Amino acid sequence: MNGTEAAIFDVFGTVVDWREGVAAEVARAFAAAGIEDDPHAVADAWRAEYQPALQRVRSGERPYERLDALHRENLEAVLSVRGHADRLDEAAMRDLARAWERLPAWPDSAPGIAAIRRGRLVATCSNGSIAMMARLARHAGVEWDAILGADVARAYKPDPAAYLRSAETLGLPPARVMMVAAHNDDLRAARALGFATGFVRRPTEHGPGQTTDLEPDEPWDVVADDLEAMAGALG
Amino acid sequence: MNGTEAAIFDVFGTVVDWREGVAAEVARAFAAAGIEDDPHAVADAWRAEYQPALQRVRSGERPYERLDALHRENLEAVLSVRGHADRLDEAAMRDLARAWERLPAWPDSAPGIAAIRRGRLVATCSNGSIAMMARLARHAGVEWDAILGADVARAYKPDPAAYLRSAETLGLPPARVMMVAAHNDDLRAARALGFATGFVRRPTEHGPGQTTDLEPDEPWDVVADDLEAMAGALG
Repeated sequence: MNGTEAAIFDVFGTVVDWREGVAAEVARAFAAAGIEDDPHAVADAWRAEYQPALQRVRSGERPYERLDALHRENLEAVLSVRGHADRLDEAAMRDLARAWERLPAWPDSAPGIAAIRRGRLVATCSNGSIAMMARLARHAGVEWDAILGADVARAYKPDPAAYLRSAETLGLPPARVMMVAAHNDDLRAARALGFATGFVRRPTEHGPGQTTDLEPDEPWDVVADDLEAMAGALG
Repeated sequence: MNGTEAAIFDVFGTVVDWREGVAAEVARAFAAAGIEDDPHAVADAWRAEYQPALQRVRSGERPYERLDALHRENLEAVLSVRGHADRLDEAAMRDLARAWERLPAWPDSAPGIAAIRRGRLVATCSNGSIAMMARLARHAGVEWDAILGADVARAYKPDPAAYLRSAETLGLPPARVMMVAAHNDDLRAARALGFATGFVRRPTEHGPGQTTDLEPDEPWDVVADDLEAMAGALG
């Protein structure tokens, strides 16, 4: 890993705990509006709309639209399906749609990224927008050198453009950049393009019954239990 | 200024002292290669190529090309005119062309921007590339929430797109964003688009004999002697 001059990070699941964070925001909004429902079930249902929405952009069915707008559309769909349509007013909807800017970091994320940053550039390579990622970083206490990913490429991972454009924007070839993620498919896409790869275990990203991404399913360049351990492995 | 949710900053001259920084890098490279010349004169000559190079992009004469590449072209032209063609080898040329990533911040920049950041998002709105700005921020000890400007707009200030795309990338209308610069023309372009404006005096940006931008030539929303004073004025 000595030739690695930058590490670029998946964010949702890898750096922040989206499920607990979204559930807490849903619980708050629902309590204020007198809606009864299971906040974790709402968080899971909202997240379940995520990949299909991105896929409509990847496939060309619709032009690039920022994740902020997709999250809002998906929230409306989920509330409607669960019988809560029109129960939140516009201000509450707008606020809840931005729950993804207020997610908690995993405890090791801020110190781990700060340590990794000592030896290289660190940037996001998320499907979140720059607006969302900048605010989320502030909330989560993480300092990035740059916010890259979908919004600079106008393409959603695992579209190769999202990774390649991120490296190119830093002025680096993929071989000198490590993609860090808690998701095997994200790393598979990056490795196919020549990136170094770092896998971090996040065994409760999807809650206590998680069955996916518990272990690396390829020999990634670095495998670690958290981002502080990854910093130690990178040196 | 209470409605301002973000401040976006010009960088060369406003946040960093490009003239002293470039002169120091030129002096170092020339000494290593045994070239005799006045480093400040070389810095001024290099900078004099800057606006004409950007203008060729703004006018459509050539497509968007990152400032990294333009700086390299301009350096070659300046060295050739001054009789130093082929005196620096490729490694030395590449290193000197990146002098703009290693410029010193004005003494108030890092603490001033950190203080301004307490109340709002802070981002660059420079003609420098993301690659250049990320490395320069590390060198200068400045923390940004996002790197915006030319490279996200693929347009050079004062092209309106460079300002408008920066605000839009933060999810904000221009009226909720303040442009901060040491240059009246930069603020004039931003104000015409609806941005708030902050002028900081940098009376030695161009050296001891500076005659331009010594004072605000319009009543900008905030005028300050340095960025710590600007933070105080913004509250």
